[in-house]
Amino acid sequence: MKLAELQSAVRGELDELEQQLSEALVSHLPLIRTVADHLLLTRGKRFRPTLLLLSAKMSNSPPSEAIRAATVVELIHTATLIHDDSIDKSELRRGVPTVNFKWDDDVSIAMGDFLYSKAFYLLVSNGMYETMDILAEATHRMSVGEMLEIERRDDVDVTEDDYMTMITEKTASLMSASCEIGAVLGDTQDGARGYFSRFGHAVGLAFQITDDLFDFMGREKELGKEIGSDVRGGKFTLPLIAALRNATSRDRARIHKILKSGSLMDGNWQELLTLIDEYDGIRYSRERAFAYAAEAKDVIKRFEGSPCYPSLCSAVDYTVERKR
Amino acid sequence: MKLAELQSAVRGELDELEQQLSEALVSHLPLIRTVADHLLLTRGKRFRPTLLLLSAKMSNSPPSEAIRAATVVELIHTATLIHDDSIDKSELRRGVPTVNFKWDDDVSIAMGDFLYSKAFYLLVSNGMYETMDILAEATHRMSVGEMLEIERRDDVDVTEDDYMTMITEKTASLMSASCEIGAVLGDTQDGARGYFSRFGHAVGLAFQITDDLFDFMGREKELGKEIGSDVRGGKFTLPLIAALRNATSRDRARIHKILKSGSLMDGNWQELLTLIDEYDGIRYSRERAFAYAAEAKDVIKRFEGSPCYPSLCSAVDYTVERKR
Repeated sequence: MKLAELQSAVRGELDELEQQLSEALVSHLPLIRTVADHLLLTRGKRFRPTLLLLSAKMSNSPPSEAIRAATVVELIHTATLIHDDSIDKSELRRGVPTVNFKWDDDVSIAMGDFLYSKAFYLLVSNGMYETMDILAEATHRMSVGEMLEIERRDDVDVTEDDYMTMITEKTASLMSASCEIGAVLGDTQDGARGYFSRFGHAVGLAFQITDDLFDFMGREKELGKEIGSDVRGGKFTLPLIAALRNATSRDRARIHKILKSGSLMDGNWQELLTLIDEYDGIRYSRERAFAYAAEAKDVIKRFEGSPCYPSLCSAVDYTVERKR
Repeated sequence: MKLAELQSAVRGELDELEQQLSEALVSHLPLIRTVADHLLLTRGKRFRPTLLLLSAKMSNSPPSEAIRAATVVELIHTATLIHDDSIDKSELRRGVPTVNFKWDDDVSIAMGDFLYSKAFYLLVSNGMYETMDILAEATHRMSVGEMLEIERRDDVDVTEDDYMTMITEKTASLMSASCEIGAVLGDTQDGARGYFSRFGHAVGLAFQITDDLFDFMGREKELGKEIGSDVRGGKFTLPLIAALRNATSRDRARIHKILKSGSLMDGNWQELLTLIDEYDGIRYSRERAFAYAAEAKDVIKRFEGSPCYPSLCSAVDYTVERKR
């Protein structure tokens, strides 16, 4: 299913979110305005707001607070992307130059801080303290994930457990928070909060594993960003971790050598891809992504019959079936 | 008056704050621990916590919430210092290497985010929503100040008004927030909140103008950081702005030329200092700092007789009389 299709159930709310995002980025400072325009121009999938709004709509129509919360979640997500791109020295995102590339790291740091603090400021101005509780924790977990990622950079001994911790903190925490907030604000059902939190967690893991597969399999034009950038940046993701685990000691040494050479010119890159594929890195990772997607659907099954249930299931499918 | 002396009125609370800071920085991640140890080793003046605690102690003994709030303020302050140092490419702070210099910009970005999000997480975990309201706004204002500073970098047309806006957002906002929180938590007196906010604002302005003077007048060894780094970084502070305003067009052109040369080798630097002094940049800035200090004392005068009044007055004196 296409993203736009599954978003149709919350189309009106997402339009309102775009409006609120523009308003949140209004500033009398030309530099903030220019960077904000660039960010609005290159809008993302709004996947986290979609999860939040669908979760909020499981029983009733989501209150205006849910749209506000979705705006805040997208602001936080954007802030972390800007800081991450600066840390990863990424040059492209969504097919356009990153903030650090178009401006510099200074603007990235300050603009990320601006968006981040704006998000919390919006919450307190609207008295949304329950949402604040959930997001303060999620944001903190994301920062721990970022530190962990830096710590384990270039570390060939990263295990699948390490990797799972990293993507749990960096990605699943905010998706889990989004769904939990939706359940809280949408007043879905007694006890629903915990299920939605678990649902978002599983979706987040499926989402990130799929994302990490793109770095090995995607095409730059479709993805709007470079291929192989994780490996180049010393980030060992699941396909590589799984392949290293399965490889003969000889091939493991060969992979290490390629990684250490720091050069991923065509020949090296192709050989690396072949080795990863040969040792089941791709297949295994896809399986894990599908397993988490199945887990997500399983958690949400008890809400079958609720208005947005089909869309939430489609969101899970989208997570693993998307092309970018 | 020495800092330690004026802090004696809240010495017990400050000791407890050190304890809480250490606890807040505990982590199972070695990288976080190492950076945290470095930060704790190079502890700052704890001036903002002191302001908060003294403000809270104007009538009663401050509740444990005030110490918690002071910890949070120091965490936010530290987070902004780390990001600022990265933006300014500073190599020294408090006589020791900055995080960006000892590690790199990546660690700075992520560690700043860690401290920042930890601060907000501590507030929500303790249900301190009134403090959160004040700090969410202050933090957002600080980020706007940072963007403004980047925007006006290398801009020789920066006016005193621009400068005042910058230091109001970047520095005075958090000091004002600290005093306001103190008044709120200390339950000082009806209506005290507004006065303490104004008091902290004036103290913040006096503090920052004095800080900016150090960049022209201090000695590196005493300051624990480089001299002339503002000018080198394209930051035009009050002494320079005032001198440029008073200079003949010929000398203004000469100053511009020195600034543009990008080189502050001994000869240039000495000439710049002489010109700034000749055109009253130093004297004028000191006058402004003392004027804000007087304003701060004036605001607080209505609390004469309250237990910590003398210490708060000493804090004002310290702001403008300190050597670093």
